[in-house]
Amino acid sequence: MGEAAPKAAQATDSAHGLKASAASAHDGAARIDFRTEPHRYHHWKLATDGDIATLTMDVDEKAPLLGGYELKLNSYDLGVDIELADAIERLRFEHPEIKVIILKSGKDRVFCAGANIRMLAGATHAHKVNFCKFTNETRNSIEDASENSGQKYVCVVNGTAAGGGYELALACDHIMLVDDGSAAVSLPELPLLAVLPGTGGLTRVTDKRKVRRDHADVFCTTEEGVKGKRAVDWRLVDEVMPRSKLDEAVETRAKAIAAKQDGKAAKGIALTPVERTRTANSNEYKFVSVAFEREDRLATIMLRGPDGAPPASPDEMVTQGAAFWPLQLARELDDAILDIRLNELEVATIVFKSDGDAQRVLAYDAFLGANAGHWLAREIRLKWKRVLKRVDMTSRSLVTLIEPGSCFAGTLAELIFAADRSYMLIGTMQGDNRAPAAIVLGEANFSGTYAMSNGLSRVATRFLGEPDSIEAAKVETSNPLEAEQAEEFGLITFALDDIDWEDEVRLFLEERASFSPDGLTGMEANLRFAGPETMETKIFARLTAWQNWIFQRPNAVGPEGALTRYGSGQKPNFDLKRV
Amino acid sequence: MGEAAPKAAQATDSAHGLKASAASAHDGAARIDFRTEPHRYHHWKLATDGDIATLTMDVDEKAPLLGGYELKLNSYDLGVDIELADAIERLRFEHPEIKVIILKSGKDRVFCAGANIRMLAGATHAHKVNFCKFTNETRNSIEDASENSGQKYVCVVNGTAAGGGYELALACDHIMLVDDGSAAVSLPELPLLAVLPGTGGLTRVTDKRKVRRDHADVFCTTEEGVKGKRAVDWRLVDEVMPRSKLDEAVETRAKAIAAKQDGKAAKGIALTPVERTRTANSNEYKFVSVAFEREDRLATIMLRGPDGAPPASPDEMVTQGAAFWPLQLARELDDAILDIRLNELEVATIVFKSDGDAQRVLAYDAFLGANAGHWLAREIRLKWKRVLKRVDMTSRSLVTLIEPGSCFAGTLAELIFAADRSYMLIGTMQGDNRAPAAIVLGEANFSGTYAMSNGLSRVATRFLGEPDSIEAAKVETSNPLEAEQAEEFGLITFALDDIDWEDEVRLFLEERASFSPDGLTGMEANLRFAGPETMETKIFARLTAWQNWIFQRPNAVGPEGALTRYGSGQKPNFDLKRV
Repeated sequence: MGEAAPKAAQATDSAHGLKASAASAHDGAARIDFRTEPHRYHHWKLATDGDIATLTMDVDEKAPLLGGYELKLNSYDLGVDIELADAIERLRFEHPEIKVIILKSGKDRVFCAGANIRMLAGATHAHKVNFCKFTNETRNSIEDASENSGQKYVCVVNGTAAGGGYELALACDHIMLVDDGSAAVSLPELPLLAVLPGTGGLTRVTDKRKVRRDHADVFCTTEEGVKGKRAVDWRLVDEVMPRSKLDEAVETRAKAIAAKQDGKAAKGIALTPVERTRTANSNEYKFVSVAFEREDRLATIMLRGPDGAPPASPDEMVTQGAAFWPLQLARELDDAILDIRLNELEVATIVFKSDGDAQRVLAYDAFLGANAGHWLAREIRLKWKRVLKRVDMTSRSLVTLIEPGSCFAGTLAELIFAADRSYMLIGTMQGDNRAPAAIVLGEANFSGTYAMSNGLSRVATRFLGEPDSIEAAKVETSNPLEAEQAEEFGLITFALDDIDWEDEVRLFLEERASFSPDGLTGMEANLRFAGPETMETKIFARLTAWQNWIFQRPNAVGPEGALTRYGSGQKPNFDLKRV
Repeated sequence: MGEAAPKAAQATDSAHGLKASAASAHDGAARIDFRTEPHRYHHWKLATDGDIATLTMDVDEKAPLLGGYELKLNSYDLGVDIELADAIERLRFEHPEIKVIILKSGKDRVFCAGANIRMLAGATHAHKVNFCKFTNETRNSIEDASENSGQKYVCVVNGTAAGGGYELALACDHIMLVDDGSAAVSLPELPLLAVLPGTGGLTRVTDKRKVRRDHADVFCTTEEGVKGKRAVDWRLVDEVMPRSKLDEAVETRAKAIAAKQDGKAAKGIALTPVERTRTANSNEYKFVSVAFEREDRLATIMLRGPDGAPPASPDEMVTQGAAFWPLQLARELDDAILDIRLNELEVATIVFKSDGDAQRVLAYDAFLGANAGHWLAREIRLKWKRVLKRVDMTSRSLVTLIEPGSCFAGTLAELIFAADRSYMLIGTMQGDNRAPAAIVLGEANFSGTYAMSNGLSRVATRFLGEPDSIEAAKVETSNPLEAEQAEEFGLITFALDDIDWEDEVRLFLEERASFSPDGLTGMEANLRFAGPETMETKIFARLTAWQNWIFQRPNAVGPEGALTRYGSGQKPNFDLKRV
């Protein structure tokens, strides 16, 4: 697999441009920007009509994110998916009145050909893995909108839905397939490319649609896929209809599903652009600062608490819109994490710090809790849930440092439990007159509001072996807990006084930077998710880990591998050993 | 990773010798034999005293299975684990009176240093993966004996228990650690070798012992491990005691645990050697034949039904002992599968066939069911459960061909549901006057007797999306179902008449041989285990897949990787990208 140097680094950060950077085989040196908005979309069209929206995929083949390939047949790359993720999010915040989203293709007789093969063949291993991770998070966000926001997705497969194209359909609630003797759904990755479907396809086939395993085996090894009645019989799609009846059937279906959704129409808020100032060693947002110490392979994310009290009413929250502290902070943190993931590949450890008034943080939590029935409060908490899951899924060591002046309370305290370790200062630092650091737990830490992908709260996952500790901690809700107390309650890893603090933290960070990056990724992926498994953890653990393995194997990516030789006219040459 | 040619192929099959073959980096060309017996052990001593057994690990460092390394400090290779697996099995069949097994070291101040690092560094990727799979199955068999056979394992850690050494302890019910300021448990794989603990360590730490994730993080990154009180506080071990009190404490503990186990003393049966005749292209057992067509990358396993009726009484079953059909067949099938896994690396597909009288198979099933309370009947069914799980975990495509003369009934019908696909002939073959093939389901297919590692029966897993089909099939228990009926009930993949049979089957087998072996392994590992996840599936899927990935990464196995450079005095040189 060629890890070629980036072709060009065209950092034009202030433009919020999707195509701010490009590289023929992305290796992190040219930055990818995750911020976009509908008028900048190259590949999607979003239209609304009453409580039904139509999201049309019409990929501009001349607008790839990286260089060296064309996005033919509605195939996609990370750039296409960044727009899709944006559209899904905007539907929730800007169009809460929408109850059904019709996801369709703008091309004739092609729904989507999946991830672009030339892009995959040319991409670095790191880019392939990060690409799959982000696209998986996007598919999960469709299911999250369906489950929690009453926005149901109807997928209209008007022709080929191959690989990632069918995986996109699988993330939807209802799949409609044209029955014209040629339109088909397929997962041709294995027979065609010697890799696996990388966006949850295998897991959703077996665990969401519960396709019988031998049918799944036939389906996943049949390049041309399955069409017509068999696709329905095997539960691969929900219904088929002649092309002549398609539009009518879609309209009827969408209206029927919309009629079943509760919820009154509300006016949305505008998701204004996330403002960011980039310097050589930092990303500055309003409530988030990211400082890079690249020599030490560190990124420190400082989260700032709110400037004042929460608004007096939900209406005022709506008026504040994207500037409402919890929402703005969540969006900034999300952008900061994604930026590190894709653009700072050598950062070993992310350090979380916070600065602000813990009681104000809790006041905002209380405001959101008291207004949990309000659509915007609900969406903001769901956004935090997704951002925190993004943190959990980030393949960097995570450590939270709890120091005087910090505000790790309620929602922000989740970053203590999301971290692989936490260190908390006992008392004060010499020359610093701020009060000793304290953690304050809130209802949000126990309620399941921010459930991890395993379905449990971070506190419940932490205390799987000592359920009494959950109750003991719960009793302390709203009480500031200083370091030694926090340690006693098992909430932090280590409490250190100012004599040891600097050395211990430094040693830990140095140690982390000295370990094998791959070994750490595998270890953390195993230690972070104790307890139950869900479809989501299966996708991120079982499927992803196998895919990572296969993405390294010569049979896929070697000079004679299937991904490398695709389209060359030459057959791949496989090492025949079954391992 | 050097895939060096085997040093020597010393096939002396008739000797049932563990060291029948050796290679410096096993690539399947020199055969490994899984059959052994206590008087041939090099590394273990098994002693019994009333209802307590002592299993002593005293590895002969001069007797490695492959060449090129010494098994110092009670480190192990596959040869050591083959003996351990044999001892665990013999305890169940030959010593049903045993209620507690004390697992200890025969070395001074060393319990076990884990998998031998030089062996790992020199082994092929395939050998590393197969080694880990087998050792995992052995650890699982300890837990299976504890859960289902009332044989509890007490592990006595008298010194270092590092890596695989601690993982062996983790498989036991109770871990006792000497508190002498130096004895410690550790998982140093990541800091020392840039790989993961490969025998379930991470999963058992988080999910069995439910160690808090930040403690687990500290533990798994601390080369020297954890000792004394902290090891108890973090739930890594169950108790610590001074060395002077160790023997007494072990005796007291073993007796206390034995006193809590039910069950009357029974006299065991002798597990006589599994007789096998090997030719260039076959393995012949009494009830199993394996035919290799290596050009086509096929192994066909023919299972033969019983010669006559089941015995009249449990006593007669005990008298037949290892020759009792269900037990002999299970042991032969187990050996056949292991032989293919380790010694026939290029076999793409295993074809299961059977030959015999279905009603006789069901009669044996009924006999075992009627005597389910008898210790030997219970052990035989548990053995079948383990063998079938071994089949599920085998990284080869599995297909079952159901033809006239076959006896896929009850227990043997599990091989239809364990397969990735099944093909059944409609009617008869020209020139063959045998009756059309029929499947007969039995109680064993529905009861959970043969639960997969996901905790469900194979039928329940198969019909996850159509629970009514389970009930429909259950109604047909004991009724012979011919091909078209079997297809209607969803029990087989394809029913074919004799015009299509040969071509369709051939095309499938050719297609399977043409796909990427790695891609198939990943796909099958995802499609075979729909539904719930358990600690066992986590170990085999999540942990194993990450380990496979890491076993391919240059940071572990490259020329400057940690595994390669271990002991060389040179530090590893890592690619610093976090993927």
